[in-house]
Amino acid sequence: MSEKKSSSTLMNDIINLCKRRGFVFQSSDIYGGYNGFFDYGPLGVELKNNIKQAWWKDMVHRRDDIVGLDSTIIHHPMTWKASGHVDNFTDPLVDCKESKMRYRADQLYFAPVVVAGETIGYVSVLEDEGMQEQAEEMAHDLKRKLAKQGEMAPVVLKDYTQAKPEEYALIPSPATGKPGSLTPPRAFNMMFQTYVGALRDETAVAYLRPETAQGIFINFKNIVDTGRVKVPFGIAQIGKAFRNEINPRNFIFRSREFEQMEIEYFISPDADWQGLHKAWIEYCMNWFDGIGIPKERLSLYNHPKEKLAHYSKGTTDIMFEFPFGVQELQGVAARGDYDLTQHQAVSGKSMEYFDEAAKKKYVPHVIEPSVGVDRIFLAVLSAAYCEEEVEGEKRLVLKLHPRLAPYKAAVFPLVKNKPELVARAEALYRRLKRRWNVFYDAAGAIGRRYRRQDEIGTPFGITIDFDTVEKDGTVTLRDRDTLRQTRMTEDELVAFLSEKIDG
Amino acid sequence: MSEKKSSSTLMNDIINLCKRRGFVFQSSDIYGGYNGFFDYGPLGVELKNNIKQAWWKDMVHRRDDIVGLDSTIIHHPMTWKASGHVDNFTDPLVDCKESKMRYRADQLYFAPVVVAGETIGYVSVLEDEGMQEQAEEMAHDLKRKLAKQGEMAPVVLKDYTQAKPEEYALIPSPATGKPGSLTPPRAFNMMFQTYVGALRDETAVAYLRPETAQGIFINFKNIVDTGRVKVPFGIAQIGKAFRNEINPRNFIFRSREFEQMEIEYFISPDADWQGLHKAWIEYCMNWFDGIGIPKERLSLYNHPKEKLAHYSKGTTDIMFEFPFGVQELQGVAARGDYDLTQHQAVSGKSMEYFDEAAKKKYVPHVIEPSVGVDRIFLAVLSAAYCEEEVEGEKRLVLKLHPRLAPYKAAVFPLVKNKPELVARAEALYRRLKRRWNVFYDAAGAIGRRYRRQDEIGTPFGITIDFDTVEKDGTVTLRDRDTLRQTRMTEDELVAFLSEKIDG
Repeated sequence: MSEKKSSSTLMNDIINLCKRRGFVFQSSDIYGGYNGFFDYGPLGVELKNNIKQAWWKDMVHRRDDIVGLDSTIIHHPMTWKASGHVDNFTDPLVDCKESKMRYRADQLYFAPVVVAGETIGYVSVLEDEGMQEQAEEMAHDLKRKLAKQGEMAPVVLKDYTQAKPEEYALIPSPATGKPGSLTPPRAFNMMFQTYVGALRDETAVAYLRPETAQGIFINFKNIVDTGRVKVPFGIAQIGKAFRNEINPRNFIFRSREFEQMEIEYFISPDADWQGLHKAWIEYCMNWFDGIGIPKERLSLYNHPKEKLAHYSKGTTDIMFEFPFGVQELQGVAARGDYDLTQHQAVSGKSMEYFDEAAKKKYVPHVIEPSVGVDRIFLAVLSAAYCEEEVEGEKRLVLKLHPRLAPYKAAVFPLVKNKPELVARAEALYRRLKRRWNVFYDAAGAIGRRYRRQDEIGTPFGITIDFDTVEKDGTVTLRDRDTLRQTRMTEDELVAFLSEKIDG
Repeated sequence: MSEKKSSSTLMNDIINLCKRRGFVFQSSDIYGGYNGFFDYGPLGVELKNNIKQAWWKDMVHRRDDIVGLDSTIIHHPMTWKASGHVDNFTDPLVDCKESKMRYRADQLYFAPVVVAGETIGYVSVLEDEGMQEQAEEMAHDLKRKLAKQGEMAPVVLKDYTQAKPEEYALIPSPATGKPGSLTPPRAFNMMFQTYVGALRDETAVAYLRPETAQGIFINFKNIVDTGRVKVPFGIAQIGKAFRNEINPRNFIFRSREFEQMEIEYFISPDADWQGLHKAWIEYCMNWFDGIGIPKERLSLYNHPKEKLAHYSKGTTDIMFEFPFGVQELQGVAARGDYDLTQHQAVSGKSMEYFDEAAKKKYVPHVIEPSVGVDRIFLAVLSAAYCEEEVEGEKRLVLKLHPRLAPYKAAVFPLVKNKPELVARAEALYRRLKRRWNVFYDAAGAIGRRYRRQDEIGTPFGITIDFDTVEKDGTVTLRDRDTLRQTRMTEDELVAFLSEKIDG
């Protein structure tokens, strides 16, 4: 009996729960926060680690054709020259010379105001749900102010990257409301830059990686030479990446410091890349479904051919219905041999692979499934967040998959003033805790203790009652989602948990 | 029957093994490498993840008094102002104005050359085992060159931070051999600096964290408010940290990008801090011993009182006998309430904790066990690396603890041309691989397959032979270290591995 929430309410509820129960905090809270950075608290770090470990287990350990890698965040800067990031990894920016404000050109919208066929001025607004309405109001204000008569043409907004050079001086700055202070858009590189070594000159410039993928490409030869791998095979990597987003937004969806899980899956140039690309998309969707991001909320978006980079054969995004809209969760790109070929050209080192079966040498092509840990985290929470009515009371429950739940189980003595119950509960807690992250709670009414665990997604509650110590030694297992209670022995419990959690 | 190696040979052997078998590569190899950065290959990432997961399990999941955290690498810059890093986290540097070379002042040594009571000039050398000898040779050369007669006083080297201002102009540059070009030492901040946001001015300066600890302190209040924790309790964090070392060295021991595992353990100001400090040192030493860094190779170094920061109550380093000398593996510091008090003063947010048992408010004091993942990695390899003679042949074996070994077991069909053996081996491999990282190898003589696994530390070899398929279904388990072979059923095998690996 979940009730339907408006999407912005739901987003706020999730953010509040994250803060209240220690999943996610705004970074540097005590210093007023730091825009685009988020810290994962005691429960958040567990959920995040569980996502990463589930991915690594399923993508690396349980497959025969993928090996792992952990390359540095700071590489040799030539890496980013070769990959094209130094020259092309940019956002278009506009300055307001008067206010010193800076905007992303593609998020700054403008329109000419045309009255009786004459352009009487321009209006500008920042990208927002209500921007059309806002622009129309501004247009009417302008018409009134200039005392113009006649019919106003529809207000047609375009973003600033589409402005003609002669329009730059006519479009008002959103900061001042007056034209004349906006600059033409300029390319702003999104890589964070630093200096390595004692000097601070051009020779010392380095970048924080904006993606983990290039660390894989530059280690391709090392891994082929040392790892007994055979094409087709993949290299997987999990790690932090950094992008100096001008406008970070939607909580942890688009932040400046985030974590990626990427695979470069190397294939023969003669392989059926369409088939492999499709297989990877399916594999990833099934994986999402298996960890609690249901297929019904996923969809596919194929990047149109004309918008692809020249080397790209095709990119499909797996989209998720986030509370703020349908957005990219994972990209699966067929990148041809572009990256290896670029690194071969710039480094002068051969990236050719000798295929023993086909008896020929080639630079492999690649399929790249790439996903953000933080986005999975948010998708998992969005799918799991649930408000229900149970026995006339509202309950908030996170229906997290047992693999991902921060605590796998909570152990409760039914009452806390019976030493034999408490001792038995503590002993069971110790036993389970050797193997899993388990919570112990003796305080308060049992119903309240259940609710506290529901809210943080603990899938199983285990109660030690008088029957446990006086009769058959069985404990009660309560299922978070079905609320069903089952009695079982401690050994049966361990086997049950093992199947549910590690399965 | 391990043979004793010279320490530099051993270090080279370890580095070579790391490269040859895909544990560690120099970062950005194809671009000529990048000084102070290292990538972890397919086996290295497994070993590193296993170290981190063992630590997290033992420090967080298996204890009742520690919770985890994952804060960002880039914090609000006030963090580093409050912690003192902006002002004091420096190395002393010297420039040679002529050659443009730059040196760490504490690694640049000099001495006056005194002949018959007269100072005839200065010599300088860079820190090195043979520097005393080298300096004496230079002194004699100088005496000869200047045709001075008389007895030379002993050459007494001091480092450049101890030079008197009037000596700067007299000490020759190591680059040119001539005096007059060295500058006075200046403080060089070791934090990597970048700019966050669209501007590149003072207001946008940010730093890559040089330690994970401050992320814990600035989240202290958040965690107290949301986490049901009670003093004494700890917050643990694993993550990357960055230091712009002028002279990174000893392989992964001192690099510019590294990974830390830190705990801040908060205690009452009235607590017996000496006792708790000592308990943490013992706890950490036992933990090292338990993962394969034997106690016999550990020792303690107490920082002398006069060298401690004013707020520090005591710091003890746990030292390990690395191939290049006895060096710090872990620091355990008693930092008083310095950090929380600093953040309280700078942020204006109270860091006080209300102790319900003691019915009073205080800013907690802290014990800080802090260790580097990369250093543990190197210590584990140094302790595990072993060359032995077995049946007249040399074998190279990594005696890694089963918890840490990249592959937990390898499954071998005795021969690869018997389909029933191969099918049985593959089925067992699939079963084990659901749960652990397991290798399958059917190629080559069984002895060679064992050796390949010995070299990468796989603790158990499992062979499927004719008896397995024709008789009782038992398999042979070969122990890497004892070389003992035992027959057991597959279920017995799973129980055995479970105890050894997850225990």
